[in-house]
Amino acid sequence: MEAYFDNSATTKPYEVVIEAVVDAMRNNYGNTSSAHKLGMKAEQELSESREKIAKTLSCSKDEIVFTSGGTEANNFSVKGFLREGAHIITDEIEHPSVLKTFQQLEKEGYRVTYLKVDEKGFIDLNELKESICNDTVLLSIMHVNNEIGTIQNIEEIGGILKSKSKKAKFHVDAVQSYGKLNIDVKKANIDMLSVSGHKIHGPKGVGFVYVRKGLIPKSFMIGGSHERKLRAGTINLPGIVGLAVASEKICQDISNNYKKISELQKYFIDKLSSFEHIKINSSIGEEFSPYIVSVSFIGVRGEVLIHLLEEENIYVSTGSACSSKNKAVSHVLESIGLNSKEIEGTIRFSFNSENTKDEVDYVMEILKKSLEFLRRV
Amino acid sequence: MEAYFDNSATTKPYEVVIEAVVDAMRNNYGNTSSAHKLGMKAEQELSESREKIAKTLSCSKDEIVFTSGGTEANNFSVKGFLREGAHIITDEIEHPSVLKTFQQLEKEGYRVTYLKVDEKGFIDLNELKESICNDTVLLSIMHVNNEIGTIQNIEEIGGILKSKSKKAKFHVDAVQSYGKLNIDVKKANIDMLSVSGHKIHGPKGVGFVYVRKGLIPKSFMIGGSHERKLRAGTINLPGIVGLAVASEKICQDISNNYKKISELQKYFIDKLSSFEHIKINSSIGEEFSPYIVSVSFIGVRGEVLIHLLEEENIYVSTGSACSSKNKAVSHVLESIGLNSKEIEGTIRFSFNSENTKDEVDYVMEILKKSLEFLRRV
Repeated sequence: MEAYFDNSATTKPYEVVIEAVVDAMRNNYGNTSSAHKLGMKAEQELSESREKIAKTLSCSKDEIVFTSGGTEANNFSVKGFLREGAHIITDEIEHPSVLKTFQQLEKEGYRVTYLKVDEKGFIDLNELKESICNDTVLLSIMHVNNEIGTIQNIEEIGGILKSKSKKAKFHVDAVQSYGKLNIDVKKANIDMLSVSGHKIHGPKGVGFVYVRKGLIPKSFMIGGSHERKLRAGTINLPGIVGLAVASEKICQDISNNYKKISELQKYFIDKLSSFEHIKINSSIGEEFSPYIVSVSFIGVRGEVLIHLLEEENIYVSTGSACSSKNKAVSHVLESIGLNSKEIEGTIRFSFNSENTKDEVDYVMEILKKSLEFLRRV
Repeated sequence: MEAYFDNSATTKPYEVVIEAVVDAMRNNYGNTSSAHKLGMKAEQELSESREKIAKTLSCSKDEIVFTSGGTEANNFSVKGFLREGAHIITDEIEHPSVLKTFQQLEKEGYRVTYLKVDEKGFIDLNELKESICNDTVLLSIMHVNNEIGTIQNIEEIGGILKSKSKKAKFHVDAVQSYGKLNIDVKKANIDMLSVSGHKIHGPKGVGFVYVRKGLIPKSFMIGGSHERKLRAGTINLPGIVGLAVASEKICQDISNNYKKISELQKYFIDKLSSFEHIKINSSIGEEFSPYIVSVSFIGVRGEVLIHLLEEENIYVSTGSACSSKNKAVSHVLESIGLNSKEIEGTIRFSFNSENTKDEVDYVMEILKKSLEFLRRV
């Protein structure tokens, strides 16, 4: 048996995505910027893909700007509205593509507020309110945390931001939520929203940013006049076509999948209740994404446990994939107040809609054996 | 009949490239940063791809940094070594991904020298010599110009730079030369070199930078610790695998293809000699890439001619694809001193190794008819 429970790291592309990518590579290889009919044909398919994605967010298609992935989407969004003397706000459990960008900007002289989170990973809305000032140009908040699954209340957060400032922009990193939770960009007052293809069974190397109509962020990638001059670089049509197919497919099934995965998560956490010396860092209920369960196995080293599991074809992460090979301690787990023993023993299980209860049973069986072995030695 | 003579805009992916992309998407979808064996398997294929590409430049594999394409490669290279008060040098016929970046940096306060070019597109080596000063941190030069095919003598240029400055870095935009001309990064004293996948029958949305060992440019994409911390963002394995297959294939055939395309170019230009009221902006010989022929059809509007040609399945560009839909006048054609009539009537024909003399004959026949028609009306 095999259990791929590392879907927050990356997902297996849908077969229809692979087919769409191949078809574009083979039959629609023109440059969307070429003025001849091969260019037009490519431009046409680009437009259709943009339309498909826009529909998933109930937005207009000229609000979608394609990027090379979630990291570029986040870098672009964070840097899009800077001006001298600006104040920018984020929280301490963001993905490195946001957090490290903020840290770099802080070194460059921008004033930065890092909102604290509580033991479940939630920001304090009062702290947020107090941190917004006249100079604030950006608030960047992750919708679903990639290590523990905390869902920030982006509608409330967006409302607070807009009530306190007319000019501050609201960026949401939706890499772990798009296609899994419903997102209402209007209701949440979102100005920019980042999405990555490979987290939703789409291709790697492609993503997009929703950019609210009327906004003109500074271009991050500079060069040719693609994407309404907001993003240079030859259009990656095969990637975009694949992304659109994945977006359409996963967004059609949000409710069904959510229900299914919520049951799976409950089943998973119930099974864990028979384990001793563990701490479950994610909860059941509306405040956490059911797609991610973070568990600390006290007295065990996560990276050792990972290797025992992989020998039995079970695939999981310690923190996130982006940091799992680093020796550095997870900033997310530290921020929610785990001690070093707990952090050391933390494993992230992350699901996709094809995962089954049988797989959970299998994982539990191997987990039990592995933990017995590790705690004996 | 069909003639795709727009290969400098983009190329059709090799079938082996498409197969490699599909194989990676289907069978090697792990995240290279995951610590388990699916991650290791992906990391292994990444390493093999890096090795393949390194071989084509006779460099070490840790000198290859993957990007989302040529534009990112150029943005990254140009911004990699900036420091306050720095002086940077380029020339006036660079690709927008270099030129616009320089222009933005100039606005931000950096001191910039734009070297002039002569009527064939060559920079003046004496002007270069004189422009290098103590504060110079970067010289960025395009190997083969994308609109007219001029080959800058990068070995001589690199030699001059290094004789005048020990710290200034040499960046070469090789997007139009890699896989078509031999490049000796050591002999040319190149510090960074940009390559794009889709210009060499590889996938769109992927490219790489050669970064000379020991150099640590500032990361352009900020986030997770991929690519020796020089480039964040989940590794686009399918794209990279496809790029490596394309690189290996095209670089094996550089000499044969060069010979073949040189003959084709000569044949093409010979045939043009029977046309009146034209000006050929590219030359035969070692100073111009045989892959690109720029021709001004005086008294004709290039974009109109393009549409007459596409009706007969002939695909060409006016300037470059990156600017072909813009009404703006080509900065390259202006820089080499063409007048507005000549610029207006300019068409770029760009070849790949599969193009044939039959196709050239066909293009000439349709060209003749189209010009007769246009000059009559």
